[in-house]
Amino acid sequence: AGLEAVVLVPAGATALGKLSQSVAYGARVVRLEGDFDAGMRLVREHAEALELYVVNSLNPFRVEGQKTIVLDLLQQERWRAPDWIVFPAGNLGNAAAFGKALREALAHGWIERAPRLLAVQAAGAAPFHASFEGDFARLEPVHADTLATAIKIGAPVSFRRAVRAIRETNGAVLAVDDDAILDAKAAVDAAGIGAEPASCASVAGLKQAVATGLVARHERCVCILTGHLLKDPETTLAYHEGTLAGVESRAANRPVTIAPTPEALARALGE
Amino acid sequence: AGLEAVVLVPAGATALGKLSQSVAYGARVVRLEGDFDAGMRLVREHAEALELYVVNSLNPFRVEGQKTIVLDLLQQERWRAPDWIVFPAGNLGNAAAFGKALREALAHGWIERAPRLLAVQAAGAAPFHASFEGDFARLEPVHADTLATAIKIGAPVSFRRAVRAIRETNGAVLAVDDDAILDAKAAVDAAGIGAEPASCASVAGLKQAVATGLVARHERCVCILTGHLLKDPETTLAYHEGTLAGVESRAANRPVTIAPTPEALARALGE
Repeated sequence: AGLEAVVLVPAGATALGKLSQSVAYGARVVRLEGDFDAGMRLVREHAEALELYVVNSLNPFRVEGQKTIVLDLLQQERWRAPDWIVFPAGNLGNAAAFGKALREALAHGWIERAPRLLAVQAAGAAPFHASFEGDFARLEPVHADTLATAIKIGAPVSFRRAVRAIRETNGAVLAVDDDAILDAKAAVDAAGIGAEPASCASVAGLKQAVATGLVARHERCVCILTGHLLKDPETTLAYHEGTLAGVESRAANRPVTIAPTPEALARALGE
Repeated sequence: AGLEAVVLVPAGATALGKLSQSVAYGARVVRLEGDFDAGMRLVREHAEALELYVVNSLNPFRVEGQKTIVLDLLQQERWRAPDWIVFPAGNLGNAAAFGKALREALAHGWIERAPRLLAVQAAGAAPFHASFEGDFARLEPVHADTLATAIKIGAPVSFRRAVRAIRETNGAVLAVDDDAILDAKAAVDAAGIGAEPASCASVAGLKQAVATGLVARHERCVCILTGHLLKDPETTLAYHEGTLAGVESRAANRPVTIAPTPEALARALGE
């Protein structure tokens, strides 16, 4: 459209694939020496003076677009709503959008009952989960720390709308640690689907929910994967190589490096 | 299909996205301390004894699959063949497959005349180009050196079949240097399409061919992009950051790193 795009990212905490795409497609990429929340604050307070139009999930048109995730899902299920929709939760834009989509689908009579929303946070960035545990009385921002960069957010901007979504759908909020996220990712990847770490919080969360009895085995559940495998090649590789700091790799297929001889290859294949 | 997959790659010369996908999807990844050609030799000579079934472009079924690139292209053009099909050339599997597809499309009467094939090599890995210059009298393997890892091949295995393809279509073979490949990539990326470096050899080659008069401006040309932008995020980012060894970056949008303050952001946007 000939518009100039500015992409603000936290320095050192942005998946390589996303960073390379932003630069490649022609955006002006500004790395901020600070975390996502510092960037979000900067944009909320100063965007207008800087003549920037904000298009992240603060923007209501963005939410209208994100609604289609749920509407497409319901259509593909022939408007027979699943029992649960499980999704990764960081800035809570998806929670807000999914809640709005279900509200409207009910109002229009497209579905007869809403699925329950299950928001899953990374344990190191779980202010929404903590708030849920306290019946949403308040939101206490945290310093976010997780390998799941897409949900590494300590002060989610869509908190109010997300609370409404969870309450209206009799939903729940869970937190899963990075080990569980990466093990779930290994399973999603090995199935030939593939996703970035944050996405797989949904699968890890469902596993936990079944283990604790929140979700019954007979219930129909849809897990949302929000980002492609190739968005974060570094984390994938480091997990399988067992070099991810603070994470225990249970990966079965660690890459090996050998001399290019038939003897070395035979040994590597025999192991 | 429950088959065990072994992926052999040259250590240190495989794009990060591809490596991460191979590991993620469950293959046993073996990095060989040597280049692509050493790995290819190893596999040709010892695969059977090691009970490996080779599925790279040596495999005739692979070529049958690659033919569909040209058949789909012709169908999308409503069987009105373009004047040229331009594509990156390394191991020459595409050249062989495209030649076979065109031969069969002519034999079946799907097209009335074949497009000319224009194979484009990286200058640092251009034995096919050198051979073409000597009327294909011989193939002299080279030590491959290029940032376009997907075509970093010094001893292409499909040489004979590729020669036939170029001859039958009155085609040509060019070589373009890494600077030209990466500038072409910047243009492909900025158009919102995006591709890995090797892919963009086709676009760089067409530019050269128009400049030298080999291709006339009025001719209809299709450039093949063989790999997605996200296959090689490292090279994309390094190009725009101006940190790629041996390459002059003409990228306009270098990422910057700043403090998360409105003053610093205003300065960054003003520059």
